[in-house]
Amino acid sequence: MRDHDAKTEERLVDIARIWYDQMGEGALPSITLPTRTKQNIAYDDDSGVWKYGDRASTRIATSAKSALHLLKMAFVIGFLKQQLRENRSSTLREMYYISEGWKKAKFSAQDESNLLIEDLEILTDLQREAFHLRPEEDGASIYGPLRLKEQTRRGERVIHCQEDVGEAGYPIPNNVDTIEFLDHDAKFVIAIETGGMYARLMENGFDEEYGAVLVHLKGQPARSTRRVLRRLSTEMNLPVVVFTDGDPWSYRIFASVAYGSIKSAHMSDILATPGAQFIGVQPSDIGEYNLPSDALTEGDIAALKAELTDPRFDTAYWKQQINLQLTMKLKSEQQAFASRGLDFVTRDYLPARLSEMGII
Amino acid sequence: MRDHDAKTEERLVDIARIWYDQMGEGALPSITLPTRTKQNIAYDDDSGVWKYGDRASTRIATSAKSALHLLKMAFVIGFLKQQLRENRSSTLREMYYISEGWKKAKFSAQDESNLLIEDLEILTDLQREAFHLRPEEDGASIYGPLRLKEQTRRGERVIHCQEDVGEAGYPIPNNVDTIEFLDHDAKFVIAIETGGMYARLMENGFDEEYGAVLVHLKGQPARSTRRVLRRLSTEMNLPVVVFTDGDPWSYRIFASVAYGSIKSAHMSDILATPGAQFIGVQPSDIGEYNLPSDALTEGDIAALKAELTDPRFDTAYWKQQINLQLTMKLKSEQQAFASRGLDFVTRDYLPARLSEMGII
Repeated sequence: MRDHDAKTEERLVDIARIWYDQMGEGALPSITLPTRTKQNIAYDDDSGVWKYGDRASTRIATSAKSALHLLKMAFVIGFLKQQLRENRSSTLREMYYISEGWKKAKFSAQDESNLLIEDLEILTDLQREAFHLRPEEDGASIYGPLRLKEQTRRGERVIHCQEDVGEAGYPIPNNVDTIEFLDHDAKFVIAIETGGMYARLMENGFDEEYGAVLVHLKGQPARSTRRVLRRLSTEMNLPVVVFTDGDPWSYRIFASVAYGSIKSAHMSDILATPGAQFIGVQPSDIGEYNLPSDALTEGDIAALKAELTDPRFDTAYWKQQINLQLTMKLKSEQQAFASRGLDFVTRDYLPARLSEMGII
Repeated sequence: MRDHDAKTEERLVDIARIWYDQMGEGALPSITLPTRTKQNIAYDDDSGVWKYGDRASTRIATSAKSALHLLKMAFVIGFLKQQLRENRSSTLREMYYISEGWKKAKFSAQDESNLLIEDLEILTDLQREAFHLRPEEDGASIYGPLRLKEQTRRGERVIHCQEDVGEAGYPIPNNVDTIEFLDHDAKFVIAIETGGMYARLMENGFDEEYGAVLVHLKGQPARSTRRVLRRLSTEMNLPVVVFTDGDPWSYRIFASVAYGSIKSAHMSDILATPGAQFIGVQPSDIGEYNLPSDALTEGDIAALKAELTDPRFDTAYWKQQINLQLTMKLKSEQQAFASRGLDFVTRDYLPARLSEMGII
């Protein structure tokens, strides 16, 4: 068994060991977890990301419901322990079906197993990928001057993300910690919301001309994609910029990259990239570049207003941009730059923004 | 300009040339297209796929609306001609934004430009990829004993889909016709609906043990994925089997692979794989393997009933399976095999089915 798998097993089994000790002392077994609400998320100065605060709740086996919850957790720990020993992996969906054989501990719905795994992440301070649980969603792709080594089940693969890949780039695997970054010839990383814009930058040779590592976010990015961005930032010392549509849902994509999300606040330390900067589409760009735009919907307006009270957007820059957008009542997509020609985005817009931001 | 780009340009310009001639003769310009409805889809014995029948409708510039439609088509043809000459490409979304500069010919909604491109596909008998229009959706991935060469904008790349790729496999590019299959050591191709099952087969070494090329469909497959399957079938002479969930929506995934879909019936000749066979999950498997299942919803039942009158399911096999499912009122997912252990699907189920089907 590999070292980190052994560490993972130990942390999982420790949870059950505490129950054993509790019962040995005549106490009821229990677990204690932080409360997972927006009110319990606080900015952590040391790490520069948003994390759970001090509010916690304890689940103790005083009711049949709580006892059953701990029983299910015990079965899951047993399953994961065996999986680690055999160097196997599985999806949450598979684990849900495997629980068919656990009698009373059978999950009644997929949601239940998902939440239980999040509990285990918090209790062990490890990601589910460390338990060898694979997400269903796939990671996105990388194209740019970067060489990496991936440890696969079929051996090591050294891959240069321009020279050894097709036009679709290098697909990020589920478990990013099997990747080691070897070297690069890049000045920065640009994370891109849509596939159309990712292909545009590749086609226009933006990666070569500006030394950019292109990372396709595919909308709201998977955990593996966020982890790759963080690792490129911390291990390779590369600035990360995020390029999305100009609407409130896309600003949330940026925020989840830079500061983490409520759903994975317990993982911010390994998933968030605190130094990541938003490059656009900025509400001010809509007027400045005369971009084709659509009217904000009621839902958009409500989302923008919610962002004004979201601690992740509590900066002068965001307050100004969001208020401007609420006044204009317009939004634009990143591909709207095509109205100025297919080269405008790489020849004019991005270089101007990167130079404003001090990156090139 | 490359040969096939020159041919594409000629076919596009021919449409406008006919208008020119019509006007020269004092006639109004027009186009004639097959009617795109389920009633106008017929089985083509020669090719073994479903295609448009003889019903056609003509659009002639006798009204402002029709004249405007032809004007828009003229602008699109001009745009695509320039794009082919410059060896550029774009997304439908970008073209929609570019039409901002076309005054009266500006598209009023993305749907309009999508339909117009389908018209051009039918009129030229070419795929949109030949026009250098990139889909937003990405293709899926391949893992298995197959070596191919992709002609990228950065030069040729020779890639072995086990030895030269990470665990996520080789991502299928948007324009599959840049790929040349070099050689393989495979006995068949298995197209898989979910990412979880694709990763399961890879982890279990199913590709190595049975000589299988694994192709991840990612739900309803993109055109590029269907084109890859057809080319693996026709050029490499490999049998193709399709492995999906056991519900009516998944049977449609199979049907779109094997016979084509209504939406792309004009492209069946290049997108469909007539010899593709359905491996499962079969309704009869639910009882036979005692799979965890869910009750059919009203929507499921209606979809199954619609399939009983769908010409693509007009076989004794499908009638029996669909009627069985309507009686049982149950459906199962492909990952439900995990209830019998993580190896069951690759050690028992798939080998048994492949041997029944005469493939191994």
